[in-house]
Amino acid sequence: MVYLTRVEHFNAAHKLQNPAWSEEENAAVFGKCANANWHGHNYELHVTVKGEPNPQTGFVCNAKELSRLIKDVIVEQVDHRNLNLDVPFMKGKFTSAENLVIGIWGELKPHIEQMGVQLHKLKLNETPNIYVEYMG
Amino acid sequence: MVYLTRVEHFNAAHKLQNPAWSEEENAAVFGKCANANWHGHNYELHVTVKGEPNPQTGFVCNAKELSRLIKDVIVEQVDHRNLNLDVPFMKGKFTSAENLVIGIWGELKPHIEQMGVQLHKLKLNETPNIYVEYMG
Amino acid sequence: MVYLTRVEHFNAAHKLQNPAWSEEENAAVFGKCANANWHGHNYELHVTVKGEPNPQTGFVCNAKELSRLIKDVIVEQVDHRNLNLDVPFMKGKFTSAENLVIGIWGELKPHIEQMGVQLHKLKLNETPNIYVEYMG
Amino acid sequence: MVYLTRVEHFNAAHKLQNPAWSEEENAAVFGKCANANWHGHNYELHVTVKGEPNPQTGFVCNAKELSRLIKDVIVEQVDHRNLNLDVPFMKGKFTSAENLVIGIWGELKPHIEQMGVQLHKLKLNETPNIYVEYMG
Amino acid sequence: MVYLTRVEHFNAAHKLQNPAWSEEENAAVFGKCANANWHGHNYELHVTVKGEPNPQTGFVCNAKELSRLIKDVIVEQVDHRNLNLDVPFMKGKFTSAENLVIGIWGELKPHIEQMGVQLHKLKLNETPNIYVEYMG
Amino acid sequence: MVYLTRVEHFNAAHKLQNPAWSEEENAAVFGKCANANWHGHNYELHVTVKGEPNPQTGFVCNAKELSRLIKDVIVEQVDHRNLNLDVPFMKGKFTSAENLVIGIWGELKPHIEQMGVQLHKLKLNETPNIYVEYMG
Repeated sequence: MVYLTRVEHFNAAHKLQNPAWSEEENAAVFGKCANANWHGHNYELHVTVKGEPNPQTGFVCNAKELSRLIKDVIVEQVDHRNLNLDVPFMKGKFTSAENLVIGIWGELKPHIEQMGVQLHKLKLNETPNIYVEYMG
Repeated sequence: MVYLTRVEHFNAAHKLQNPAWSEEENAAVFGKCANANWHGHNYELHVTVKGEPNPQTGFVCNAKELSRLIKDVIVEQVDHRNLNLDVPFMKGKFTSAENLVIGIWGELKPHIEQMGVQLHKLKLNETPNIYVEYMG
Repeated sequence: MVYLTRVEHFNAAHKLQNPAWSEEENAAVFGKCANANWHGHNYELHVTVKGEPNPQTGFVCNAKELSRLIKDVIVEQVDHRNLNLDVPFMKGKFTSAENLVIGIWGELKPHIEQMGVQLHKLKLNETPNIYVEYMG
Repeated sequence: MVYLTRVEHFNAAHKLQNPAWSEEENAAVFGKCANANWHGHNYELHVTVKGEPNPQTGFVCNAKELSRLIKDVIVEQVDHRNLNLDVPFMKGKFTSAENLVIGIWGELKPHIEQMGVQLHKLKLNETPNIYVEYMG
Repeated sequence: MVYLTRVEHFNAAHKLQNPAWSEEENAAVFGKCANANWHGHNYELHVTVKGEPNPQTGFVCNAKELSRLIKDVIVEQVDHRNLNLDVPFMKGKFTSAENLVIGIWGELKPHIEQMGVQLHKLKLNETPNIYVEYMG
Repeated sequence: MVYLTRVEHFNAAHKLQNPAWSEEENAAVFGKCANANWHGHNYELHVTVKGEPNPQTGFVCNAKELSRLIKDVIVEQVDHRNLNLDVPFMKGKFTSAENLVIGIWGELKPHIEQMGVQLHKLKLNETPNIYVEYMG
């Protein structure tokens, strides 16, 4: 079993806010992340698939096709978007890195499996000092 | 003459849009950067000052004080903010990296000079692949 | 289950030396790392916790609080310190990256658990080319 | 159990090509990677070993000896080489990152075990955006 | 005057060899870089242009158009190529980083000027530890 | 004129302390950097030379020889050392990054000139967020 990872990037705006809470409660929990007018990040997404290398190619899967798939299925939806307002798969969810990585997993998994490999892990860097990982 | 650089970070939302243009014109020039609901970046700011090392300390200037100054004067205004809506020194300007670095220069310069050193250069990374530099 | 990692930094001096050995034996095993007058590193510490995102916040745990905890419990003890002389939890231990990561685990674990999440993994970079990982 | 990783680098040429296929088939699957006159990469190799820290040294294994071993056994064979033509352990294999990491594992494992530690994982970065991992 | 830099990447094979010299002379000067079967690198190219921000856009020049231009004029010629064999503008030249950056300057300069900005500097990283800069 | 840079690394201990001042004065100015028992850094040194590429080699200067020279003349003196106690060229000086880069310039310059190139600039990173530059 070999694990292959492809890294893609996107830039997005978001805010962290519980609409059931007062402004004060939101500020107390989310701090500056609750700024009403949004802030944003350069996100870095690592998509790890696993499988046996194909004897015809030496590939677990074609990294260029994997890149194209991630761009078509994920980057197209989130790049230069507002995660709270513009992204169908995040509708009604808090746009924490945790929820975002779970949402991306749900979008990607069926497409990855159609390539004949398993989706093993996602890693999502929100800043150089904060990242989340999810394995389903 | 020695050049000392301190790096600070901030995360902000913005969009690129000429309000005098139609939506189509904006999309043609600014592409996805004109998305009405904003996008955002992890900005990285390099502040370079120059001077002779002080014989009492070996410092051109105290890097910790320089860090505190940049945080007080710049990061406090832009971090977790919307560059188009929330930042007084960007009011009425396009929030391109070019205009942002010029705006930051104007804010920082008098404070840096009060520390007894000269502001030499600013470098502002908008993404890992795009940065601007300004020397006044 | 989602894994959330927060990265913090500290700068410290240390040396690697077995006091039961001669200077020659120490030099043979530890090389330049046994230099009597110390050397030092910019350490980078990755703290990974795991849990289910809280439905009220979308967070496994609040990354800002996690950052504050790591600073209070670890960085305060080791930053700008001598790992052999100044750090209570390393007293009497060789200050290898391996022992340091085990020591940090012991300090952090009870505090992390009080936040209601599990400490999953520590990664400690001693240089860009040497790092250790520990899962308890 | 502590995991210790040492990172080493090498620069090599290769191409991806199935000799049983036509030029068109190769171009369709491997794209520019099939360029007849080769291309190349700055590879980054992470070698992770695991074990208990030795009470005489605090080391899982001596990182300097581990570095020397990786250089002698792997870097010497692949650095500034053509992976398709010059490297005995890749003879007759497609030089995908997947096959390369499996080949490196086979070369390194017996030598690592002679140091008294277990080889846990290899990570091989082909570009900043593509990497493979292998655990045997 | 503001300086804007766009970074692009390419992967290429090359070797360093003076055909007027014996194999021994080449090995003495170029070492492993003279390996007959080539080696390669992940090159990183920084293209810096300068100008006044356009009052209609806030841009010195459109970074997306600059990216497209660099890809069309340079990356298309060198990516996944052999710098000694495949690249017209390097024909008959040693493929040192120094000559490569001069060659890229010659290709890019007229196209950059057609965008209405000046080409200020090129920086070309051959490895993380070796880079060249050229200002014409 | 082409500028060639070679990057080397060293790990060292130091402290910042004015022996003419009280402990309180030192703490007020140097903060944690004055810790009596030292702290340390992974320093990164960029050495930039300039010249015309040699028509026999394509090199401004041989980067491998430049690397060997930096290692022999600088890294040998400072790596795994105490900058205050062990380094002849820093004797009696405050070991700020500013003074260190000036000291390295003095050591390197005559050796670089013997290679037939000019020393153009030194850049010394003390941490990822603080660096100094010196051009003589």
